[in-house]
Amino acid sequence: MLETIGFIGLGVMGRPMAKNLIKAGHPLVVHSRSRGPVDELVASGATAAGSPAEVARLAPIVITMLPDTPDVELVLTGPHGVVSALRPNAVVIDMSSISPAATTRLAAVVASTGATMLDAPVSGGEIGAVNGSLSIMVGGDEATFARMQPVLACMGNPERIVRIGGSGAGQICKICNQVAIGGALAGVSEAFALARKTGVDVARVRQALLGGFAASRVLDVHGERMLTGNYAPGFRAALYQKDLRIANEAAAANGVAMPATALVAQLVNALVASGGADLDYAAIGTVLFGMAGIR
Amino acid sequence: MLETIGFIGLGVMGRPMAKNLIKAGHPLVVHSRSRGPVDELVASGATAAGSPAEVARLAPIVITMLPDTPDVELVLTGPHGVVSALRPNAVVIDMSSISPAATTRLAAVVASTGATMLDAPVSGGEIGAVNGSLSIMVGGDEATFARMQPVLACMGNPERIVRIGGSGAGQICKICNQVAIGGALAGVSEAFALARKTGVDVARVRQALLGGFAASRVLDVHGERMLTGNYAPGFRAALYQKDLRIANEAAAANGVAMPATALVAQLVNALVASGGADLDYAAIGTVLFGMAGIR
Repeated sequence: MLETIGFIGLGVMGRPMAKNLIKAGHPLVVHSRSRGPVDELVASGATAAGSPAEVARLAPIVITMLPDTPDVELVLTGPHGVVSALRPNAVVIDMSSISPAATTRLAAVVASTGATMLDAPVSGGEIGAVNGSLSIMVGGDEATFARMQPVLACMGNPERIVRIGGSGAGQICKICNQVAIGGALAGVSEAFALARKTGVDVARVRQALLGGFAASRVLDVHGERMLTGNYAPGFRAALYQKDLRIANEAAAANGVAMPATALVAQLVNALVASGGADLDYAAIGTVLFGMAGIR
Repeated sequence: MLETIGFIGLGVMGRPMAKNLIKAGHPLVVHSRSRGPVDELVASGATAAGSPAEVARLAPIVITMLPDTPDVELVLTGPHGVVSALRPNAVVIDMSSISPAATTRLAAVVASTGATMLDAPVSGGEIGAVNGSLSIMVGGDEATFARMQPVLACMGNPERIVRIGGSGAGQICKICNQVAIGGALAGVSEAFALARKTGVDVARVRQALLGGFAASRVLDVHGERMLTGNYAPGFRAALYQKDLRIANEAAAANGVAMPATALVAQLVNALVASGGADLDYAAIGTVLFGMAGIR
């Protein structure tokens, strides 16, 4: 019999991740703010819990998959929170993308109860969550990581479940991922804006660039979105805006200057301001196209 | 007997490109400002010409591979320039990376003599030039492109010799290439600055990111340079500075805003200002590391 897992946060990502744990044979205890996803998981075989504390009472492993830092703080350390009821030797795995500084603070609170916390943010989007092929970037101690690897492997590609370092290192790596993508997105958007404005065939430019040093998954996948104008998410601009807010906060907190990331964050602000919050974040391209006077 | 080719500009790139034309069996007429490279090519079987005009008198195909826009203007339209002596039906192939606006002007001057000009800037660096595996982005008319393809194939990878569009489109595509790379470079540099400053293992971050959406040749190759601190060029920062100057000029001339490219250009300015002109352009990373107080 596999261990019981508690799962808190049944949004676009959490729902399919939780289902993959059930498929793998784990008894699942779930909690979420909205009733619909809970009912959906109960129909798939999960047990509903009335609070985060109840989840912690019933499960030795508690996974959180929540939108933002305050959500994780509330669920772990708020009233009827996970920390108030953690079992001895329990493991908390926070798979949300949140502040690395808050993560190390929360990990210390969890440790004070005798339990252990891993930060394990993911990339790969809804498709990766559904297919169980997420990349998972883990921070925390090595022994706990090793023990939790089979659990994480129910949700991610085993080759891409990597321990980056101690507590918070997973969140730092996730920020690095979003920062690297942001620069690439801005570069591709500006290149396409110039090509379009000068009447040069953008599809041929993309094809030529994919054969050389400018080759990237961003040019390939998001470049294709910009070509066709199909900005169905994918990954919503509003969530990318949140990730870049965390990136810029981490830059300030750690004494790092990220001028390009700051610029990309402003482009995302412009996208969201013009009604693009629910578009795929590749729609940053439309901001640059608009600045060049092209639709 | 293959056609005689004139080759003007025997720098780091031009020298190996010219040698590959000789290897392919083309009689070669060469001209360059400095004597050394001319002697080297003559030793390999080329004929030396006294001026660009003399090259044009001796060869029905004239290739230029020069550092910057004014160099190409001088060689083509200056005193004893190529245009003064072009044969009927000659083809000028400018493989330099220069201003697209100047390119279309020069192409019109060449056309007024009854000859044809292609713009055919390359990417792939010195290694690509030596191996004959350059990517070549071509602007100009389709028939001339088709006729010149076997000549270009002596210097580039046939799969990556692409006609992008009419005159100037090759230069626009080259700018797009440098712009896309610039964004990716800035993103990777900032990600690595954050990881290093927070004590997170950058090699593991790079490896994790290569498995996901942040994957790019820049992260792979230039990320490796940043890890090891080996900034032997490769592609010199001074040349990238020139390419970004052309990019920003093209943005202004065509009514396009490129804020990220402007930022990258400033980072390159900082690199060059601190003595990095002859380092590989991946050394942009050191500017961000310096801004974060790390060496």
